[in-house]
Amino acid sequence: MIPVPHRIALLGFGNVGREFARLLLERRAELKREQGLEAEITAIFTARHGSVENAKGIDLRKALRRVEGGASLETCGRPIALPTSEHFRRGRADLVIELTPLRIAANQPALDHIVAALRSGKHVVTANKGPVLYHYRRLRELARRNRVGFRYEGTVMDGAPIFNLFQETLRGAHVLSFEGILNSTSNFILSEMEAGRSYSDGVAGARERGLLEADPAMDLEGWDATVKACLLANVLMGGRLRPEDVPRQGIAGIDADRVRRVRAAGGAVKQIARGGRTGRRVEASVSVEELPPRHPLASVDGTSSALRVRTDMLEDLLILERNPGVRQTAYAVYSDLIAIHEGRLHP
Amino acid sequence: MIPVPHRIALLGFGNVGREFARLLLERRAELKREQGLEAEITAIFTARHGSVENAKGIDLRKALRRVEGGASLETCGRPIALPTSEHFRRGRADLVIELTPLRIAANQPALDHIVAALRSGKHVVTANKGPVLYHYRRLRELARRNRVGFRYEGTVMDGAPIFNLFQETLRGAHVLSFEGILNSTSNFILSEMEAGRSYSDGVAGARERGLLEADPAMDLEGWDATVKACLLANVLMGGRLRPEDVPRQGIAGIDADRVRRVRAAGGAVKQIARGGRTGRRVEASVSVEELPPRHPLASVDGTSSALRVRTDMLEDLLILERNPGVRQTAYAVYSDLIAIHEGRLHP
Repeated sequence: MIPVPHRIALLGFGNVGREFARLLLERRAELKREQGLEAEITAIFTARHGSVENAKGIDLRKALRRVEGGASLETCGRPIALPTSEHFRRGRADLVIELTPLRIAANQPALDHIVAALRSGKHVVTANKGPVLYHYRRLRELARRNRVGFRYEGTVMDGAPIFNLFQETLRGAHVLSFEGILNSTSNFILSEMEAGRSYSDGVAGARERGLLEADPAMDLEGWDATVKACLLANVLMGGRLRPEDVPRQGIAGIDADRVRRVRAAGGAVKQIARGGRTGRRVEASVSVEELPPRHPLASVDGTSSALRVRTDMLEDLLILERNPGVRQTAYAVYSDLIAIHEGRLHP
Repeated sequence: MIPVPHRIALLGFGNVGREFARLLLERRAELKREQGLEAEITAIFTARHGSVENAKGIDLRKALRRVEGGASLETCGRPIALPTSEHFRRGRADLVIELTPLRIAANQPALDHIVAALRSGKHVVTANKGPVLYHYRRLRELARRNRVGFRYEGTVMDGAPIFNLFQETLRGAHVLSFEGILNSTSNFILSEMEAGRSYSDGVAGARERGLLEADPAMDLEGWDATVKACLLANVLMGGRLRPEDVPRQGIAGIDADRVRRVRAAGGAVKQIARGGRTGRRVEASVSVEELPPRHPLASVDGTSSALRVRTDMLEDLLILERNPGVRQTAYAVYSDLIAIHEGRLHP
């Protein structure tokens, strides 16, 4: 097996981007040996540390050291003066990994990056929910027309292979409905309250652990769970939902006594994201509910997340990922890279 | 898309074989439209209803009617006088689905059928644990050498895609250990005891529902769970285990009071199959254990089954299939057929 080199442009070098770089450093030899894949990061674009390229591959150890020390990437390669779209057009990478921060808006820089990359014939892997949420059909078609890969496993439930599982592995099965615990920050805060803490102490604990989004409403007002519910409904069930139109209930201001009372009776208060059909209409919702004892989602604690799916073939399948961290999101990107290398261009 | 026809030889026409035939009848149009796959069953081999072939495809409605009425298949096609191996060699099918009953033994007719089919260049799908358990490496190599498919998703957890998930979807991740509830009959009997029944009433209930194997020791003495633990250890972790060598504890004769006492305290008595490594050695075991409240496997009730896997990438992933029936095992065969049709020859 002759290893096929991939030249990767990395958009964003935050927590997930840096963890992906660490994973690549650790597994480089294994990737080459077991998958016949040689991966070099030939460009890194950042908002605050500059953007650099190196056709022979950027020294990732050095790049990690510099950014983690708060320095610029300037010593890691040639500065990139071109806009990203022009960089892609000039063919200096064959795969683009898009990891810029989430914004809930139909138009955003991340979308432009992905469109430019696909149009220039580059494969795209993203863990960014926004573009997939609002433009799934368009991006899928663009990738197919250009015969390149477009994968996004890291957008829901970190490394747990949700899209892969239901689109690729469970061929011939149709998703009828789902319910899940999809926002790990809310779930962590609820678990803290079960353990005796107040709502505001739970929020403070989440902030200390780096679990809270820059905009806390994303987690506490239920936006993150709603975005994920829409993503699942649109991609797995053919919906056309936008989070603005979906009934949404966050855990903000929830009564700690109620959480503990339900817990004492063996049940659990949980934020549940749902998707289903009414006639031909695909619908979704996010609400805070009291689950009875031994409900399969009642024991999903801390930062764990879980998705329970009904299909016409497997009536009731549940996937639970316990306490994932940034390594698991980086693995989602890594597994998408391997899939594209194997010619599995779409989930 | 021009539909590619598959001529299928079905070995065994028991519960799973007949359900697969029903599934094929229901989904024939969809398979052609969505997967570009035309499937005809051109031969059925049975032990008690005769063996017939029809190059244009056997009328499955008629075959189901006859066998369910206790009649022979003789009016459904030409009788097959040849041994199966000779039938395969003469090239009258391109895919063999092997669904004969499980026997725990290294040498068995099912193995001979599979070897003959692979050697004659036929794809093989099986839901039969025996041959995969004892001869996994040999069969995998034989399939690769002959460039044909060999898939066995239905051998563990019915339709839940265990092998597919860990071998195909989670590329680059290595299984470190697993624990699961893999024998649904034992789990059903334990749930019956929790609900107030005695052990023998639980066994009688399982028998009434057709959950008990012809040889009850398979379920009650823990053999079925042990076979599945060995299969997972051998296929997913590179082990070379045989069930005879694995510590095994069945639920036979278990004290109903103990089951209810643990349940009253919020926990559950469960039969747990495990696999792991001690140094480089792959090990497995099956034991009856008391799980604490909120253990992720404690709420797995009735005929549900679940598998919790630790990998070096996803630290803790759990797959739970609730109350599967024969339709779900038939779906495993169906999804293996689609996979082979797509060129995904091995999980």
